[in-house]
Amino acid sequence: MAYISVEEGLPGILGLLEFRQDTAKPIRELTQLLLRGPSPLNEGERELIAALVSHRNKCAFCDSAHTATADLLIGDSDVTAAIKEDIDSAPISDKMKALLKIAGKVQQSGRMVKDEDVTAAREKGATDQELHDTVLIAALFSMYNRYVDGLNSWTPENPKFYKSLARRIGPKGYNRPPNGYEGNKYFKTDE
Amino acid sequence: MAYISVEEGLPGILGLLEFRQDTAKPIRELTQLLLRGPSPLNEGERELIAALVSHRNKCAFCDSAHTATADLLIGDSDVTAAIKEDIDSAPISDKMKALLKIAGKVQQSGRMVKDEDVTAAREKGATDQELHDTVLIAALFSMYNRYVDGLNSWTPENPKFYKSLARRIGPKGYNRPPNGYEGNKYFKTDE
Repeated sequence: MAYISVEEGLPGILGLLEFRQDTAKPIRELTQLLLRGPSPLNEGERELIAALVSHRNKCAFCDSAHTATADLLIGDSDVTAAIKEDIDSAPISDKMKALLKIAGKVQQSGRMVKDEDVTAAREKGATDQELHDTVLIAALFSMYNRYVDGLNSWTPENPKFYKSLARRIGPKGYNRPPNGYEGNKYFKTDE
Repeated sequence: MAYISVEEGLPGILGLLEFRQDTAKPIRELTQLLLRGPSPLNEGERELIAALVSHRNKCAFCDSAHTATADLLIGDSDVTAAIKEDIDSAPISDKMKALLKIAGKVQQSGRMVKDEDVTAAREKGATDQELHDTVLIAALFSMYNRYVDGLNSWTPENPKFYKSLARRIGPKGYNRPPNGYEGNKYFKTDE
């Protein structure tokens, strides 16, 4: 049970975002821009960064949600599992390998990212914007993971929930449903 | 030198926020709401959370900036130094001690915050909103610190810079100056 009173039945980040909607608005906007806005990285690649950071932070809600979303957007459920196991042997581009290694360092500390990491990514074609977005997405999920777990929000165990969530945030993104979650009907009908 | 091309002379987070202004907008809005919006925690107390997390993440830019800002808002330059040294003996309320301990755990991992930490804070009078805001501010600076250091942004060494910055963000907050930084005249005239 969450450490603060959130709407019953709203899991993970969703209950927290409803708890304080004024701060939720820019959090959602930032996420929508970074993960669904125009970018040289495709949406699946950006979800991989979110999944990797959440996995390494052991944030079960975010890990499950963004793994399901990356799987859906990539159209293959092996890629996300592979990058969690070993980035180098995963079936992704060399540029994404270099960027995910940077994201993995950011998950630990920004100070771990060194010149040679950036040089390696540039040699594989990474641009300023790709470097910027990789670091900011990894930093954003370092925030999300702490927000979700620091307030002990509810983590559903049924994988169906995350597949249902992915079917929404995959194509529709991170904006709040226009009428909120309508006493959770949103999820109940969705599942 | 930053790993990406930011406007010359714009230090720390400022160069990064100018580099991608669309994502900067919600980041600034979130920070303004959390650190300067209505809250049961006063502005100095909220800056203490930012300074503690940034200090523990060894993010020199953010640590210096939010220490100078906390010092200015509290009107005493010993309090921030004291909480970095030892929260229990610092000259702050028992409630703030309990909240800062939670922030310190969030800096490491959201999963470190336990029932007993929350119970201890509630026994000293902490409300749901104070718990929520403490965790989210600590999480937000976990993001900022990684963003700033992960892209190796420029960290001025002159303490005068941070005092000048504090004189702006202390009273004026985190919104972007209406005309940007005007080729850094903003800082040069301010210092």
